[in-house]
Amino acid sequence: MTNKPLQNRPHRLLTSMVLGTTLLAGAVTADVKRYPLPGSDFPIAQAVEVTADTTIVYHSGMTPRPANPDAERYSAEFWGDTEAQTLSVFSRLEASLKEKGLDFGNVVKMQIYLVGVPENGGAMDFDGMMRAYRKYFGTREQPNLPARSAFQVAGLAAPSMLVEIEVVLARP
Amino acid sequence: MTNKPLQNRPHRLLTSMVLGTTLLAGAVTADVKRYPLPGSDFPIAQAVEVTADTTIVYHSGMTPRPANPDAERYSAEFWGDTEAQTLSVFSRLEASLKEKGLDFGNVVKMQIYLVGVPENGGAMDFDGMMRAYRKYFGTREQPNLPARSAFQVAGLAAPSMLVEIEVVLARP
Amino acid sequence: MTNKPLQNRPHRLLTSMVLGTTLLAGAVTADVKRYPLPGSDFPIAQAVEVTADTTIVYHSGMTPRPANPDAERYSAEFWGDTEAQTLSVFSRLEASLKEKGLDFGNVVKMQIYLVGVPENGGAMDFDGMMRAYRKYFGTREQPNLPARSAFQVAGLAAPSMLVEIEVVLARP
Repeated sequence: MTNKPLQNRPHRLLTSMVLGTTLLAGAVTADVKRYPLPGSDFPIAQAVEVTADTTIVYHSGMTPRPANPDAERYSAEFWGDTEAQTLSVFSRLEASLKEKGLDFGNVVKMQIYLVGVPENGGAMDFDGMMRAYRKYFGTREQPNLPARSAFQVAGLAAPSMLVEIEVVLARP
Repeated sequence: MTNKPLQNRPHRLLTSMVLGTTLLAGAVTADVKRYPLPGSDFPIAQAVEVTADTTIVYHSGMTPRPANPDAERYSAEFWGDTEAQTLSVFSRLEASLKEKGLDFGNVVKMQIYLVGVPENGGAMDFDGMMRAYRKYFGTREQPNLPARSAFQVAGLAAPSMLVEIEVVLARP
Repeated sequence: MTNKPLQNRPHRLLTSMVLGTTLLAGAVTADVKRYPLPGSDFPIAQAVEVTADTTIVYHSGMTPRPANPDAERYSAEFWGDTEAQTLSVFSRLEASLKEKGLDFGNVVKMQIYLVGVPENGGAMDFDGMMRAYRKYFGTREQPNLPARSAFQVAGLAAPSMLVEIEVVLARP
């Protein structure tokens, strides 16, 4: 693995130019360095480094909206499957970030909690989660990848709720 | 949801006044901004923002003391129920923070790990945890709410241990 | 518990001396304070404090390499037991940190996710994990202890995978 991350060189160049100006005024500009996963195109960063002069935002775990509010409360139909729930979580999270002047490109760390499903022998539907994740991370429009962990928990706040996602962000 | 959190305006006003003075000396003062959950009185913050000039304290997961040390070791009676264990965790955590010059008002992020109980069909006793949580967070004396995630894990360090809580704090 | 951590006094003394010099130039030097667990020799810190002038590195959850790649894919033999998997995770993590100019002494926070094993009645093999952990943390060569949480999850990315470890580091 190289020590020089690829994806935010333009950003870092810009930062350097800004620094050249602002250092005269005694200010410092935040910088985020993303280390790619070595030898893999899996869309997460191996690590993300945040300089000391950065404002950090800790976001609470986000859960989905009901996919079908008219279905029996807390049934599988009520919440939808793992992919649908992940899309709902990202949609709600995107709206929350937007209200705070942030977006997915500012996410530096993510934890994904999944609940197992009968269709997968009781294991989490990791692939369903990834299909939703790939629509928001590692795209041409949004190439910034977070440090991430994802694991199967024994349960979330409500029956049949399958996905909760927590993020930490660096304010640009 | 508004972008202007309600609960720490006085603090922020104070910070601004301090800033007015200290900027002349080139210093910056730490600030914590708490975003309320939109359209909800559930006592957590949607997100908590911490400026770059803030000392951060990462606290290890805290587990409860035995409720009844004379009961059979690691039995349900030994540790007590979810509410009792959560109260014990918060009591121990409060003492640890006090020794470090901190208190619950400085918590910016919390993760709560719960184990399921037979009385609840194997699911975690979320309500029992919340009864204890509400005694320490969102009260008149301590209105500061953390960004939070809570989920059911498959097990903690000892049998019948039902609650572990981890916090991140901003030193004021 | 004392408010004065033992293990990095030399480091802090050095920092103070450096500060004495660099303050004249307007710079500030990062500092990490580790609070020992009161009344315990369990090798984690109760809390770790990181001053504002510190670069933080968030590392993705690290999983093990197969212990025996020729065994049946995703069998217990394929991945090895909890101790072997934890050693593999730390070995891979050490290599990743080295590439970034970091080492285990810079870890300030750790989360360990374990999966239960049949040999232990379905509970996680906490002792097996600790045998591996103690080779890297709390030794004479590497005395720096992180704030830590460890808990049993319901599953990780692949069947029979038993260990995933996530760390946050302070760049020295």
